[in-house]
Amino acid sequence: MRRVDVVTMDKIVSLCKRRGFVFPSSEIYGGLGSSYDYGHYGVLLKNNVKDQWWRAMLRERDDIVALDSAIIQHPETWRASGHVASFTDPLVDCRTCKLRFRADKLEDAQCGRKPSKHPGETPECDLTEARDFNLLFETTIGPVKDEGSVAFLRPETAQGIFLNFRHYLQFARKKPPFGIAQIGKSFRNEITTGNFIFRTREFEQMEMEYFVPPAEAEKWFTHWLDERRGWYLKLGIRDDHLRLRPHDHEELSHYSSATSDVEYLFPIGWQELEGIANRGDFDLTQHAKHSGQKLEYVDTASGERYIPHVIEPAAGVDRCVLAFLADAYEEDEIEGEQRTVLRLHPLLAPVKVAVLPLVRRDGQPELAREAYEQLRGHVQAEYDEGGAIGRRYRRQDEIGTPWAVTIDGQSLEDRTVTLRDRDSLKQVRLPIDGLGEELARRLREPWQSPKQD
Amino acid sequence: MRRVDVVTMDKIVSLCKRRGFVFPSSEIYGGLGSSYDYGHYGVLLKNNVKDQWWRAMLRERDDIVALDSAIIQHPETWRASGHVASFTDPLVDCRTCKLRFRADKLEDAQCGRKPSKHPGETPECDLTEARDFNLLFETTIGPVKDEGSVAFLRPETAQGIFLNFRHYLQFARKKPPFGIAQIGKSFRNEITTGNFIFRTREFEQMEMEYFVPPAEAEKWFTHWLDERRGWYLKLGIRDDHLRLRPHDHEELSHYSSATSDVEYLFPIGWQELEGIANRGDFDLTQHAKHSGQKLEYVDTASGERYIPHVIEPAAGVDRCVLAFLADAYEEDEIEGEQRTVLRLHPLLAPVKVAVLPLVRRDGQPELAREAYEQLRGHVQAEYDEGGAIGRRYRRQDEIGTPWAVTIDGQSLEDRTVTLRDRDSLKQVRLPIDGLGEELARRLREPWQSPKQD
Repeated sequence: MRRVDVVTMDKIVSLCKRRGFVFPSSEIYGGLGSSYDYGHYGVLLKNNVKDQWWRAMLRERDDIVALDSAIIQHPETWRASGHVASFTDPLVDCRTCKLRFRADKLEDAQCGRKPSKHPGETPECDLTEARDFNLLFETTIGPVKDEGSVAFLRPETAQGIFLNFRHYLQFARKKPPFGIAQIGKSFRNEITTGNFIFRTREFEQMEMEYFVPPAEAEKWFTHWLDERRGWYLKLGIRDDHLRLRPHDHEELSHYSSATSDVEYLFPIGWQELEGIANRGDFDLTQHAKHSGQKLEYVDTASGERYIPHVIEPAAGVDRCVLAFLADAYEEDEIEGEQRTVLRLHPLLAPVKVAVLPLVRRDGQPELAREAYEQLRGHVQAEYDEGGAIGRRYRRQDEIGTPWAVTIDGQSLEDRTVTLRDRDSLKQVRLPIDGLGEELARRLREPWQSPKQD
Repeated sequence: MRRVDVVTMDKIVSLCKRRGFVFPSSEIYGGLGSSYDYGHYGVLLKNNVKDQWWRAMLRERDDIVALDSAIIQHPETWRASGHVASFTDPLVDCRTCKLRFRADKLEDAQCGRKPSKHPGETPECDLTEARDFNLLFETTIGPVKDEGSVAFLRPETAQGIFLNFRHYLQFARKKPPFGIAQIGKSFRNEITTGNFIFRTREFEQMEMEYFVPPAEAEKWFTHWLDERRGWYLKLGIRDDHLRLRPHDHEELSHYSSATSDVEYLFPIGWQELEGIANRGDFDLTQHAKHSGQKLEYVDTASGERYIPHVIEPAAGVDRCVLAFLADAYEEDEIEGEQRTVLRLHPLLAPVKVAVLPLVRRDGQPELAREAYEQLRGHVQAEYDEGGAIGRRYRRQDEIGTPWAVTIDGQSLEDRTVTLRDRDSLKQVRLPIDGLGEELARRLREPWQSPKQD
């Protein structure tokens, strides 16, 4: 697979910083390990990814509704879910280098004196027995730190959905199968982070809990495997860079009877992009027990009542962004000059169109501004008059802008412009007037991916 | 002002819960004081508010770029900003009722034995001297709780912008005046919360820092007062429910030479919706000092260098949502029946169009589904075939849906539908085909507010 050699994590990190997609967080203070801030184009790209997820969940179906629950939920939530008791990593301390490592990931440990996978075998490292450390970020509500005021930052958005399940039966008049979808930040106090935005302590999730009659759980599990895989493909991910990997028996969480990961072939290898789990009735049952409330569906007509089973597609926003960037990243040559180009799906591209006067005189900037004003009423547009036209094209290619509109001498005579395609590099002449509608129309059309392996 | 009598906080809270806009958070566990979850229509409304803010900041101007920085920044950030030292509330304890109150807000205190405004004057309350309590939520990064691993949840998004200022000079090739805009969650461990989503410990902000040459600060301060006021008006807020209130000298923060609040006439009275501050060079100077980095603008052509001054419009997303809801809330009478209607600006309305077959037979549901499939390709749409048509209209009115499309007998003959307007209640007949484009076009038009005082 040729591309894996071309795209490296270093190249992506470098482009992200150079072009304003992602910066190391708190950099002027020396950074804060594995924490990142999204710059201008990163925000636009990430917002587009989230928009497309909402679109697939809410706009293109009518069995799913939205939720945005608080990051700090009642602490009992995390006792019921099992997180307080068992959301842990086994950690070991090294008595020599004074560092701490995940006992099950010693081979990934980063340390001057790299601890051996087998404690005691190397003289440099002197590891303690593994102990369990909880991954919940803890804080206190109210001005006094006492037992009663301890709260947690949620480690997943999912539980907020189960807590609100009853409300949705009422106001949304929903009966299973139906889903509740949520996008939001989650926090896990992990010791092993890394690989850029792939694994960070603070991250954003897109989770949907799909409530079904128990007998239909398997059918809907398969449905969601297909749906979610299709979502990535439709947004341009290469078919052979995407796979479904079922968890084997030992890997399965205690609450799940089946889980498959959607994996993407990152520059660091196949890694989880999204997990799709059949959670059974574990969550509703647990919260019913801990709250003393009935969390079940009652069919008022038939009198039938049951605790729905739950299928959960849970994706990471940051991982999606990384996968879309990695998959879009290409280097090619134009007229002897090397070019880096992000072949992002136009719907995901941070900027849809750049408006460029060929030269900075003869009325071209004025007409270009006019075209720009029109275009930005329809799509995210950028105006750029600085520097040679080739360099301006390169800059737009690097941020993945699918179209560039160039205003030249002829434009002033007949109000036409050239529309340059990022991928085919073809230029066609089109009238300025109506161009905004034309691009909006093209955005609605299915996309023919130009990516090659 | 008649409306203030009609719209009460109770009515809004009740509608929000009944119709799925906002629920008390963690309710099955008895709630978590002043914490709320947004339900389906609340998410859609809130997303629309944020979209309109992004639109005003990014799409309609080209001097502002976006950022999404981490919630947990390097702790030095909050020493530099002054939050660690002085982001405090003065609190008093009552020795009798064992509760704790803000010393400066005793008149708002909620307690069985309400403490007097003047400690010592009533026999029931026995208040301690006021002590300062810091409002930063604290947590620890990594598995060990020690001094070095303490971190804070950001109390405002603004500081993340100052930390990234240098990056933006580079990649975005910006020179002052330019702005960096951000939307995200912030956390303040306040003891006095309340008034529904008006003041909560966890809340969402829309902040923009606008960097200007020092001599132009006053001019841009005025510019942003006008711009931000205009934003609310354009989105339908009543002119006489909105005012600018300049802070007097005692109110001003130590870093600000001028601040004006955009205030809205909530059912609880005039309250801050957004603060617009001239922060001078306070923040960049502080971070330069604490980081040892130069945070200044250098004009490579002229050699001119200076620390830009900053104008900051800082709005609360949740407060905006509450204001838009309160301002939209009306009760009227249709054919002798009372109706609650949200006269939301169509751009803000959670659902743009409802598709309703008049009856559930004769092929009407099938044609209605066809219309629905077309419409949802263009705008957020809802399909509803259950119950009497009048009741279905009422339900859409209550969630603020501006248009309802009804499929009736004639529709099956000539493929026309009636389009009902939420506000005028007028119905016009239009062809099904092209209706999606027509509604998308109407959404782009300026809105004539039907609200009355």
